[in-house]
Order: sequence, then C-alpha cells, then structure tokens
Amino acid sequence: MSLQSFFGPKSVAIVGASRQKGKVGYEILTNLVAGGYPGKIFPINPKADEIEGLKCYPDLASIGETPELVIIIVPAQLVAGVLEECAKVRVKSAIIITAGFKEVGPEGKKLEEEIVRIARRAGIRFIGPNCLGVIAPGHKLNASFGGDLPVPGSIGYISQSGALLAAILDLANANGIGFSSLVSIGNKADIDELDVINAFGEQPETKVIAGYLESITDGDVFVREAEEISNRKPILLMKSGSTAAGAKAASSHTGSLAGGEVAYESAFKRAGVIRCDSIKQQFDFAQAFASQPLPQGPTVAVITNAGGPGIMAADAIEEQGLTFAKLSEETRKKLAAKLPAAANVHNPVDVLGDALADRYEFALDIVLDDPNVQSVVVLLTPQAMTQAKETAEAVVKIVGQKKSGKPVLACFLGAAKVDEGVQILRRGGIPQYDSPESAVTTLKAMVDFVRWRTRPKRVVRLFPVNRRKVESIVERHLRRGLLDIGEAEAKEIIEAYGFATPKGSIATTAEQAGNIAQQLGFPVVLKIWSPDILHKSDVGGVKVGLRSEQEVRDAFDLMMYRIPKKRPDAHILGVLVQEMVRSGKEVIIGMHRDPHFGPLMMFGMGGIMVEVLKDVSFYLAPLTAEEAKQMLLNTKTYHILKGVRGQEGVDIEAIAEGLQRVAQLVTEFPEIKEMDINPFVVGAPGTTPIAVDARISLEKK
Amino acid sequence: MSLQSFFGPKSVAIVGASRQKGKVGYEILTNLVAGGYPGKIFPINPKADEIEGLKCYPDLASIGETPELVIIIVPAQLVAGVLEECAKVRVKSAIIITAGFKEVGPEGKKLEEEIVRIARRAGIRFIGPNCLGVIAPGHKLNASFGGDLPVPGSIGYISQSGALLAAILDLANANGIGFSSLVSIGNKADIDELDVINAFGEQPETKVIAGYLESITDGDVFVREAEEISNRKPILLMKSGSTAAGAKAASSHTGSLAGGEVAYESAFKRAGVIRCDSIKQQFDFAQAFASQPLPQGPTVAVITNAGGPGIMAADAIEEQGLTFAKLSEETRKKLAAKLPAAANVHNPVDVLGDALADRYEFALDIVLDDPNVQSVVVLLTPQAMTQAKETAEAVVKIVGQKKSGKPVLACFLGAAKVDEGVQILRRGGIPQYDSPESAVTTLKAMVDFVRWRTRPKRVVRLFPVNRRKVESIVERHLRRGLLDIGEAEAKEIIEAYGFATPKGSIATTAEQAGNIAQQLGFPVVLKIWSPDILHKSDVGGVKVGLRSEQEVRDAFDLMMYRIPKKRPDAHILGVLVQEMVRSGKEVIIGMHRDPHFGPLMMFGMGGIMVEVLKDVSFYLAPLTAEEAKQMLLNTKTYHILKGVRGQEGVDIEAIAEGLQRVAQLVTEFPEIKEMDINPFVVGAPGTTPIAVDARISLEKK
Repeated sequence: MSLQSFFGPKSVAIVGASRQKGKVGYEILTNLVAGGYPGKIFPINPKADEIEGLKCYPDLASIGETPELVIIIVPAQLVAGVLEECAKVRVKSAIIITAGFKEVGPEGKKLEEEIVRIARRAGIRFIGPNCLGVIAPGHKLNASFGGDLPVPGSIGYISQSGALLAAILDLANANGIGFSSLVSIGNKADIDELDVINAFGEQPETKVIAGYLESITDGDVFVREAEEISNRKPILLMKSGSTAAGAKAASSHTGSLAGGEVAYESAFKRAGVIRCDSIKQQFDFAQAFASQPLPQGPTVAVITNAGGPGIMAADAIEEQGLTFAKLSEETRKKLAAKLPAAANVHNPVDVLGDALADRYEFALDIVLDDPNVQSVVVLLTPQAMTQAKETAEAVVKIVGQKKSGKPVLACFLGAAKVDEGVQILRRGGIPQYDSPESAVTTLKAMVDFVRWRTRPKRVVRLFPVNRRKVESIVERHLRRGLLDIGEAEAKEIIEAYGFATPKGSIATTAEQAGNIAQQLGFPVVLKIWSPDILHKSDVGGVKVGLRSEQEVRDAFDLMMYRIPKKRPDAHILGVLVQEMVRSGKEVIIGMHRDPHFGPLMMFGMGGIMVEVLKDVSFYLAPLTAEEAKQMLLNTKTYHILKGVRGQEGVDIEAIAEGLQRVAQLVTEFPEIKEMDINPFVVGAPGTTPIAVDARISLEKK
Repeated sequence: MSLQSFFGPKSVAIVGASRQKGKVGYEILTNLVAGGYPGKIFPINPKADEIEGLKCYPDLASIGETPELVIIIVPAQLVAGVLEECAKVRVKSAIIITAGFKEVGPEGKKLEEEIVRIARRAGIRFIGPNCLGVIAPGHKLNASFGGDLPVPGSIGYISQSGALLAAILDLANANGIGFSSLVSIGNKADIDELDVINAFGEQPETKVIAGYLESITDGDVFVREAEEISNRKPILLMKSGSTAAGAKAASSHTGSLAGGEVAYESAFKRAGVIRCDSIKQQFDFAQAFASQPLPQGPTVAVITNAGGPGIMAADAIEEQGLTFAKLSEETRKKLAAKLPAAANVHNPVDVLGDALADRYEFALDIVLDDPNVQSVVVLLTPQAMTQAKETAEAVVKIVGQKKSGKPVLACFLGAAKVDEGVQILRRGGIPQYDSPESAVTTLKAMVDFVRWRTRPKRVVRLFPVNRRKVESIVERHLRRGLLDIGEAEAKEIIEAYGFATPKGSIATTAEQAGNIAQQLGFPVVLKIWSPDILHKSDVGGVKVGLRSEQEVRDAFDLMMYRIPKKRPDAHILGVLVQEMVRSGKEVIIGMHRDPHFGPLMMFGMGGIMVEVLKDVSFYLAPLTAEEAKQMLLNTKTYHILKGVRGQEGVDIEAIAEGLQRVAQLVTEFPEIKEMDINPFVVGAPGTTPIAVDARISLEKK
C-alpha cells in the first residue's frame, strides 16, 4: 500500500474548516494554503460561504466531485457521520485529526471502534484519530497543524506523539533539515506505524525512515517487514517506555529475565532497526544516513586545526569500538610535503591553528585517497585565522569531486563564528555535528548498520524431530486444562526434539530403588515423584551423590517418611532414581513468549553468572546457527565456556544446537508459553550434552 | 594566591602590540579596548607612535609607571628579554601569548626553561606561554584573542586547549551563558591548572569552576586541594586522552589493571570533581550548578504538556538511577481540583496539550510544595495553543517567589516556537535543556555531588604496626639494588602490618619435610624455595593437597630431582612446607603506584571475576573504613562475598581492614612501587583471613 493519496493528493476536502483563527480547522486550512498546495482545496462548513477566499461547501456531496483526501476536524461524536458521508461519495483516504477517542476512556474506545467499522466496510483507509496530520514538502502538502512546511528532503518521519512531532518540525526548520514526509499516526486505529514505514519504503523520495514510537501494534509482522525494508533503507527509531520493563529484565528470576524491553531490543536487532536515544541523536544519525555513503569498515581518520578536539575524537573512536585509522606511508609523505613542519601527519591530522581553508582542502583530498581510511571526521575550531566559510566550501567541493564512497562528517565547534560555514556544509550535504563525540557515535551507527546488512543469509536449520509425540502431550494437557507440564513429560518433549536426558526410572520401594541404582551405576540422584510437588528441594525431595545401594535405600525411606508429613496433600507416585551427570558446565536454555514479538530465546550460565551478574542474552526464535552462536558470544559466560587460562573448553556448537532445537520446538508449538532447560550440562567437544531438568508451561491459543 | 592582577589589573601593557589587522598583537589590543576595559592600556611597540588612538611606548621602562599586568606577544626568542625588562620595572604578573616553546620540541623546551628561570628569580608569575589569554567579564577585561567578551556570570573556566576555549566562548556568547573568568593556561610553564582552580575557589564572583584538561601537573596536591575547594564550589572537568590508558586498564594482567585513566577517575572521585563527557554536557551541568540550589535527594517530578516527552523523562530518571517521585495524596488532590479531568495528576503531571501558561504556573506551584519532590523538570512542546513565552515567565516567577530550595530545570523542545521562552528562562536563571535526557543527566550529577558533599568525614585509621621491621627489609633490598622482594620477606612485611600468613617451615631433606608436615597437620602444600625461581608453578615447584608423610616425602624428592634439570642455574634453598588454607573465598588486594596520583589500591576476586569479567575496583590510598567498604561495594564480587542464595557470606569487614592495612603500608613506604596479596583467603565472619601469597616490588626514591 503506497498511501500516495495521503502524500500527494490531487484534491483535499477539509471537513470542519473554520474561519476562526486559533481553531484547528482554521490552522490546517491556512497551513495548506500557506504551504502552496497546488491541488484543489474544498473547505466544508455549512455555516460559511468562503474561508480565506476559498469557496466553502455545506457537505462533501455538494462538491460535485470526489476529493482524493479528506481531513476531518469535527467533534468526536460527528466523525462517524462524516465517514458515512465519505463512503457515499466514494472517498478512499481520510485523516482524522479529532481527539476524544480511545485515549479518553471506554466511551471514546466505542466511538473509535465504530469509525473503524464504517471505514472497513467502505474501504476507506484513515490516519488518526487524535493526530496532528500529514506533511509532504515535495508535494507542498501541509495537511497538519504541526507547524510550517519544512524544506523537501529525504527523511520520512513517523510519530506516535503529535506534540513531539511539532517540536521536531520546529527544530528541523530552524536547522534547515529537510523531510520527504512527516506523519502523525495518533491512535493508529486503522493505518499504523508499519503501514507508514512500508509506504516510506516504497517512496522514491524517502531515503531514510525515522520515527518515534511508544508501542508496536503487530510485533511479529513488524519484524518481518522492517527487516525487508532495512535492506533497502535504514530505519531509525526512538522507542520510549523502556524502563518499567527494563527493571523486570534485571529481576533475578530466570523466567522473567526477558521483559518487554528485551523483546524490543531483540526485534530491532533482528530487523536491522537503528535505535536512537534522543531527538538530537536521531537527527545526527538521519542526516548522515540521508546524505553520506555507508562506510566500508570501522577505520576513521580525523582532520583538525586543534589538538584538544582531535584527542576528544580519538577517545570517542576508541570508546565506541571503531578503529583509529593508521595512515599509509604514502599519505603521510604527501601530507608532509605540503603541510608546515609542525603539523601532525599522523592521524589525527593536525593542520594547525593558523590553517586557512587550503590546508583542509589539501589534507582531506589526500586522506580520502588512503585505502586505510574508511571514513573521515573534519574538525574545526574558530581560531584567529580560521576560515570557517571557505573551509566548508572546500570540504563540500572535495567531497563532491572525489565521490570517494567514504562518509565525511564535519564538526565545526562554536556558534556565530562558524555559522556561515555550517550553513554551507548543510546545503552541500555534509552533516555537521556539535561535538566530536556525536560525529563518532553517528559513524558507529553506520558501521553497525553495514555489519547488519552484510550479515549471512538467514537459514534456519530444521532438525528431524518427533513432532507427533509433542502434539499428543500438549493436546492432552490443554484438553485437561493442565498448563504446567511435569518433569517426566517435559523431558519426553525435549527428547522428541533431540535432547539427551539422564537415564533413570521410578521406584516405588526402597529395594527397587537400590536395584535401579545398581543398574545405572553410582553415583545416583533421588527425586521425589509427585504431580503436586513442583519445588522438590523445598520439601527435601532431592538427594544427590548417593554412592551405594544402602545409601539409596536409606534416602528412599527417609523421603517416604518425611515428605508426606510436610505435604499431606501431595499424591506421591514414587521416587525417580537417576544417573548423576557429573562433568561439564551448567548452562540454561530458556524461552519466554513475548506478547508482541513471540518466542524470545534466552541463554545464560547457571549460578552467579545469571543470579549476580545478570549475564544473559536474548534473541527471537527461530534461530539460525549464526544467531545461536551470537547469543553465546553476547555473554561474558562465553569466555568461561571457551576455556579460561588453559582450562579445556566445552562444546560450544552443542549449546548453539540446543538453542536452535528449542527455538524450533517453540516455533512449531505456539502453545508453549515459557520453558527452560536448566541445567543443560555440556562437556568437552564431542561429548553428548545432557538436559538434566526441563520445565514447560502452556497457554491456550 | 588570588591571581587578582590577572583578572582585574589597574593597568595593562601589551608588549608586541600591533597596528596590523589580523595580527595577534592587534587583536588583543582591540579586544581589550572593545571590551571596555576601564584601566590604563600601554601598547608597547618601538615602531609605532600610537595604535587605535592609544599612545605607544618603545619599551616598558619608558611608560614611567609599573603596569600591573603585562601581555607578551613578541616572537619566542624575544620573550626572555621582555621578561628581563619586566623584572627591571618590577612587573609581577604576565601573560605570555607567544607560541614556539615546549610544544615545538627540544629547542623550545630550552627557551621555556629559561623564561621560567627568569620569572622565578624576579618573582614574576605568568600564564602561558602558547595560550589565548585571560578574560574577566566582570572587570571588562578581554586580554585574549579568543573572541568577544561574554556577559558576566558565575562560571570560572580554565582550558588547556586555546582552540577549544575559542569554540566555547563562541558557543557561550550565542547562548548568553556568562562567565566570571576564562583562562587559557597554554603550556602552564608557571601558573598551572591548580593555581587557577585555587584562584577561582577564592573569587567571590565564581560559583562554579569548569575546565578542559589534558593532563594534571601535580596529581597528589591536586587531589588534596581540589577536594577542599569542592566542599565550597563544584568543579566540572572534561579530561581527554582517556582511552590509550583505558585499554591498559582492561588488560588481563592484574598488575596493570590500574592504568592512568583509572587513577584519574579515582582522583576525581576522591576530590569530588564532576567529570563531563563533552562541551555540551559541561554547559548543561554548569548552568544548573550556577543557578539552582542543590537537590536534597534523588526524587524528581516532571510537569509536561505531552505524554511522549514525559515518558522519555521517566525512562531517563530510571536509567540514571534517580527516583521517579511519588506525589503525595494532598498534591494530587490539589492538582485534580483545578486541572482538567483528562490531566494526569500523578507524576509525570500532564497539564495537556492545550495548556496555557496558567496551568504550568499552578502545577509547578503545587508540585514544589510536595515533600516527596526534591527536584522538578518542566517539559514543554510547542503545540497549537502553547504559550512558550508566558510559560517561561510563569516558571521564573514561581521559582523566584517560592525559593523552595529545590532545583527546577526546564526543557522546552523545539526552536523558533520556543526561542522567546528559552531566552526568558535563561535570563531568569532557569537552566534550559534540549532534551529530557540532558535535564535528567544534569540532576543526576547534582545528586551525586550532594552525596559526595555529605560523605562522612575522612578518618583514616592508623593500625599499630611494626614499621621498623619493614624499614629494615626495604632498606636492605634497596641497598643491594634488589627491587623484587621474595615471598618469604614479602610475607614478613605484611605480617608486620598485621596480616596472618600460612604456617610453615623450610625443609632441606624429605624426612624433615615429612616431620614438619606432621606437626602442621594435613593436608599441606609444598613450594620450592629459591630466590631465582619467581614462577614456581611453571617448573613444577608447587604441590598442593598432600595428605600423608609419605606423599610429602615423595613430592619433596620429585622436586629435588626434576627442578634442577629444568633450571640448572637456580640456587635451591629447600622446600617450604606450609599448612593448606582450605575454606573461604580468594580475593586479591593490590596496589600500583600511579606516577601522578600515588598509591592506587585495587580490589578484586580471583578467577573469572578478574580474568574474564574485569570486576575490580580502585581507590587512592590511604583509605578510610568507608572507602575500603565502598571499594568492595563497587564490585559485583561483593554480592558473591556477601553470600548468594542462602550461601553463607564471608567476613567483609576483614577484607576492608586488609585493604586499609595495605593502604597504610604503601602510604608509609613510598618505596613500594607495586604489591599484591593474592590470594587473600577470607572465611566466615569472625575467622582470621590468611594472606597466602604476597608479591612486593620496590623503586628507588
């Protein structure tokens, strides 16, 4: 869906146009006129003949033709009626500015549901309600009360907060930042963020998609479609409301380690969405992505006329994990041949405080040729001799001439003394930053994006499994309303998906327990077996390291004597006698189904690594082999698993495979709400890892 | 030293004044005149009669009186001569603008040493060379070529980079930010950063001290004096050049864990210095510290006219570790009584998009009264009805009337539409931020500063120790040029400072070893004993867990047979038979003497906590009990030591005492360059911790 009728309609009707200054119905009309909108404008107001010189109509029907876009500003109770009118004259696109819907409570929610019904029936697509409108500078369309029409540019902006959009517009206009379109999506009752992002994806005039969101309507689809679009255009999003969930993510309980915020992070990572912390950062990023080529790698060269800011840039490059470029000998020789003796011809190239524009021009020209340099930051401080204006011209000229394919970012420090230069940079398509740190942070976002773009193709391996077996267990539980699957059947499920579990059998007498243990070989573990006892340790229902038949028989009898006293309600089926898994490291493979984004896989190492250090990583299922491996790499635990200080490492691939297998299980069974294998004991490479314990809970679909 | 002659001199001579536009000697003269300097100005230039209407003198002597301040702009080779002239006419204060000294190489360094000699002899104090000059707006003194005189204010600024100072001045002038003084310290050959900071400390017009530094001349004194000043005035510093050292800090070798950057961090922490990441952040902080009272605690209330920015502020408050204020019932009732029904009367208080200034005025008035609120952020987005100007006036009025003692920070988002309001806020002393995040980060810096200010008095406990013993060991080693102290004597040293070490004796025969072991009780450890073998394990010289006399005898003989083959050069004195310390956690107490800041204590836990997780903390010695405890609290290790999941914790106080004892040792013996006790084995509270191994190296003083 292109939403073209919203951005470049041939005619616009304004239902609720007003002649009273200060009223939204007046503001939108005058904004539309002031922006120079070239199409027809039909103000609709039964009480007026004309507004601002435009002929006024009592209703849509009396126009005599079908407006391509209708803007609705009437009170909330009247909106449904206007939509019915739209349906009659076959209007297909509307913007509902009016507030007083879902956001004000149950009554408003009903009204909103009603207008959605009417629109669906009539095939009308609408933006809003409770929004600021739509702006498309290239079409001279300012169908909003957000502010003046900005200059045309290549950033498509979407905002879930109208107020923020107004502030952004004001800021952008002050800084000469251009947009292809801006959309305030309001309550997004019909057209939502993804519709707009998709439309921006198809718009040739939009090169960068940016936005502010508080929620995502359909997480699953969002990830899929945003990933597809990110391959063509970068998507830069601010997402607020992160911390309540963030607190949850830090909680020590494994099951809740994956809060909503973590799911958003994972979804954005998967989809290549670049997350921005603030409006300023979003502007910083958007300008570079809109005007500069993507860097081919992490090396950065700096050209400066002062040491201090050069050091600040170097610090930032290292802190951000980029690489401070090592200039080639040829570059250094060429620089040394023309720059003064005191100049620094190593990175950061210091053209000295008395540098005029020519030194910058010369140095930038040489440095851009260096194959060791993949991006350049040009720093300037306004000193006595400094030519900010001419230097800006030189930078624009060299970048334009060379077409090096390398991004060049500028940071002219100061205000009045560099202002003229900054304007020239902006007009010349060189993004300008207020600090070396901001420029470097922007380069980091670009480098990360390139890494994402060049990621290997996602190939999810499908393991041969016994799906039928799992189906029968899951169905039986759901039929009976049992949402927690007991240990035995949870193990059957993971066995069906290729996991090895410890050998063992249920004993009902002490003697039988001794015999089973004898067959398994010592040492063994005893676990009380009862559907009513979930936390076995709490009632003394787990005994490890039993080394003889006698010890096993004693432990059995003690459990049978003591546990019924503690839990007289529990139906005890016997005691599980199990081989003891001794060697290897204990890790956790977990899954928590996020309401928006679906199954979120979790990996961590048991003990202090999770409990004290919260050292866990998350990724949305299903997983490719690379993604599973990346989950391991994203933890500090990885270093321990790999083997610290000559200690032998464990089978990393086996853990990655375990993650993929669980990911396959939870993708194939959306009924599984939460599960973990804990501990999953992994030994040296080549040995079979053992899923010692598993916990699975279901939800009705 | 007040440096008053530099900030408010009665007369200024400019040696090297020029009539040629663009020359520094012209720029400074005209800046001085344009700034309205009220004192006498004496341009010195033998080739001119007058410059810009001012009578010119051929030299200082011919003025006929002694100028209070002399600005020197002549070429580097001539500066010494000018200083001699200054000495003759009893000038006491000079600013040497001229470059071409230390910064250009060995020749320049010599010149610089010469001018320092002349100045010292004549009792002349000077700023520079290679600097931009001094600016003191309150005295209408612009003795610089940095830019126009800013408005008077209460920020004292010091910069080690002249170019950066020029940029800062330009930025400040554009934003109407005022200063008490600005000093470019250049090569700081005489007057250094600490002299200026001390002078700012005494200046009544300076409320906040801010600066950009690349190095600190005398770390030790800096910490002491900056700490004293921070009790009266906040010191906000940018310090660049952090990352080369930062990389060192992340190295896995314990000894080098404390790089220079870590020392700076520790020094700033001790001295209460507030570190800033960028110019923007420094401005953000400086404005709040200069104009607002310090918050009494971490709770923040937010008033906004839009949901989005309110959520962004809430996120930032939580992310920064501040507390989102819970408004009292009384406050909520009062707010609800007058605000529209749809308004949110919980924090963040949402006065709604159509709010005029009156709602802000009302809400701020009520919220400031709430005892649960310790600071307030006022957010505004420019919507259709918004009155940025009137709202700013209302905020200024309420803050002025109430004198609540609580900081109020504003964040008016946008540009042209809020500009008038922003100007009113600035003039009214309400700091304005470009994003909710910046405002909240500023509050966080204030809250941290208050925490530092209200820290308990530093009382360093002096343990009774056997100092004489250590003196004799250290002296003996230094006399013989031995800089590494062997294990036996290193243990004697720490025993003299109250540490318990494992019991044990040297055996020279297998039988003797068996007997010693028998007396100590099993298990025991055997360690090869040779001054030539530093890394015992590498040659098979350590054997742990020996459980019988036979095992001890066997191990002894194997060492005696094998080790001489591996290390034929080593003089073997015997084998140490030592009790085995079994229970408890192993931690490391270390010290590394930083060349600038002196002994830097290190604490960490052995194994993965240090090697993989780099979980260590640092603090400058000597340590108070609180500081030692804080070192533990600053690590994640602390949670493990305290006891995870019901595990019993270890004796935290014993570790803190160990840290204090080592701090005392290294403070009393500056000859100790590096040392660590590793492992320091700590058991349950009340048990004696054991220093199992110690390593000490010396340096000549």
